[in-house]
Amino acid sequence: MIPTIPPTHNPALAQALHDCINQKTKPPGSLGQLERLGHQIGLIQASTRPVLQAPAIIVFAADHGVTAENISAFPQEVTWQMVENFLAQGAAINVFARQNGIALHIVDAGVKHDFGPRPGLLDRKVAWGTHNFALQPAMSLQQCQQAMEHGMALVQDLPGNVLGFGEMGIGNTTSAAALMHTLSGIALADCVGAGTGLNAQGVRHKQQVIERAIGLHGQQHAPLDLLATYGGLEIAMMVGAMLAAAAQRRVLLIDGFICSSALLVAARLQPAILDYCVFAHCSDEHGHRAMLNHLQVQPLLQLQLRLGEGTGAALAFPLLQAAVNFMNQMATFASAEVSQQAR
Amino acid sequence: MIPTIPPTHNPALAQALHDCINQKTKPPGSLGQLERLGHQIGLIQASTRPVLQAPAIIVFAADHGVTAENISAFPQEVTWQMVENFLAQGAAINVFARQNGIALHIVDAGVKHDFGPRPGLLDRKVAWGTHNFALQPAMSLQQCQQAMEHGMALVQDLPGNVLGFGEMGIGNTTSAAALMHTLSGIALADCVGAGTGLNAQGVRHKQQVIERAIGLHGQQHAPLDLLATYGGLEIAMMVGAMLAAAAQRRVLLIDGFICSSALLVAARLQPAILDYCVFAHCSDEHGHRAMLNHLQVQPLLQLQLRLGEGTGAALAFPLLQAAVNFMNQMATFASAEVSQQAR
Repeated sequence: MIPTIPPTHNPALAQALHDCINQKTKPPGSLGQLERLGHQIGLIQASTRPVLQAPAIIVFAADHGVTAENISAFPQEVTWQMVENFLAQGAAINVFARQNGIALHIVDAGVKHDFGPRPGLLDRKVAWGTHNFALQPAMSLQQCQQAMEHGMALVQDLPGNVLGFGEMGIGNTTSAAALMHTLSGIALADCVGAGTGLNAQGVRHKQQVIERAIGLHGQQHAPLDLLATYGGLEIAMMVGAMLAAAAQRRVLLIDGFICSSALLVAARLQPAILDYCVFAHCSDEHGHRAMLNHLQVQPLLQLQLRLGEGTGAALAFPLLQAAVNFMNQMATFASAEVSQQAR
Repeated sequence: MIPTIPPTHNPALAQALHDCINQKTKPPGSLGQLERLGHQIGLIQASTRPVLQAPAIIVFAADHGVTAENISAFPQEVTWQMVENFLAQGAAINVFARQNGIALHIVDAGVKHDFGPRPGLLDRKVAWGTHNFALQPAMSLQQCQQAMEHGMALVQDLPGNVLGFGEMGIGNTTSAAALMHTLSGIALADCVGAGTGLNAQGVRHKQQVIERAIGLHGQQHAPLDLLATYGGLEIAMMVGAMLAAAAQRRVLLIDGFICSSALLVAARLQPAILDYCVFAHCSDEHGHRAMLNHLQVQPLLQLQLRLGEGTGAALAFPLLQAAVNFMNQMATFASAEVSQQAR
């Protein structure tokens, strides 16, 4: 069921990419992170002339039973209301995806609301929200597996070679923090943040809810057990989608805290998935910086975003395009007859 | 000659912008720096519905007599060769400006080369490069004034309401470091960096050249005296262009170390110019972070760029567009019927 993801490791190609980048008319290394990004995309596509085709972002939406514990600044119905807002083109992700020429796909992974058949909404509802993980596992292993399979199948059907991930689900920073802590071993206090806007007391309460839940469920280590116990349906579906996208050698554009928690699960299953991942931004959600450090990765943007929806991915996309464009379009020292640095 | 630049201060409009931003369907503050950017552009344009029209970047090129002191990793002829590369569409700034729909204007402010009349090159050559400021002032006060007036006139002729600044000039980080030190009082060692790629010994030598020059020229304080003594012709022309652009209430998109040194001069003349400035990125050139801190400003990108040409400005432009687009295109809580945070 879980696809095998090979590393992109290829020493000959890596050297060819390095040479290609250094022949461009600029001081060596002077495009900084864009050079590393172009190099990475070249390795993913096994080409010194990488191209980005049909960029897309999938936004996975689902509800969380743990909202019953009063762990969010916004009420649960905001999940379905925001899905409606996505369908009406009114949310931030609509604006930024449209601006940057990115196709947007909205998936109901498990929203507690009857949308009926709706154009523009991909109905992959596994359940009407998860159970409250403070009292019982968020989902069964079967539901978790079903969500992951839906995610994999969704990606199979999409064109393009660069895929961003976004999410909507009131309560999902609580799931993501629990997954981060149990998967990484980072202290829970360093994983729990304000989400959509809790005050300090609210953050303490949220941490206590997770602590009690961990006491209830006991020590677990298998990533899929943890995903089923704490994770949202949107997180599980993202895990499947990420695995399938990397198996197809797409560039994965990872958004913020919740997307990164899904990637933590995926990377535990298939560590080489990280070769395919570009980290769009470091979120202002407490914990995201530590999670990126844990993954030993460097985000592109640091704009104090904490909106989710895939907004960071949409905003970072022009930088991926720039990385590919400089490799394909810039002149070389030789072609432009520009003198090189003295050796 | 120097235009008066009024602050954008407007408490009633600032409150209206704040309310407009907080009515959008997102947790308050969750778009981080983009919210502050939208607010700033609204104040510049005196509107809660700001728009960006006909974005452009002007690249000012000039040569520096101080290259005789062996302060650059690249030879002086690279300045004109790179101007040819700009005209042939082969440089990084061509690629990024084209990608992001930004008009590009190339200006010969004082290159030591006879281009002849060339389509696409704005000939505003004040001199065939500056004098070597290690031996004498880089330019006369008359030349400095002429360069600034050319910069002002250039901007008068341009359409659009957002203008980025870029530069090309082998040796110009040496001028910029001298200006930074003498204008800000920051220790010279914290102002001098590797430029296009000096090694540690080269950086020490570059610092010594500047130290000796300061000993030669003595204590000066008037910004235009310092600009004439140390500055390049491209820096002086940028100072004029920046002043004119702010006086016309355009958004100024400031690139890296050299552009920021021009802004230091401009801000000493007209402090309110900072209200109109968006800082595209923090360059990897040693000194830029300290210069941004001195100006008490926050850059949008931190990508370890150190290429110049206005590349950071071109790469940051989609974020300005995103800031304006979210203000104009996102639904409000009321219009989308989304529940708000409990008070």
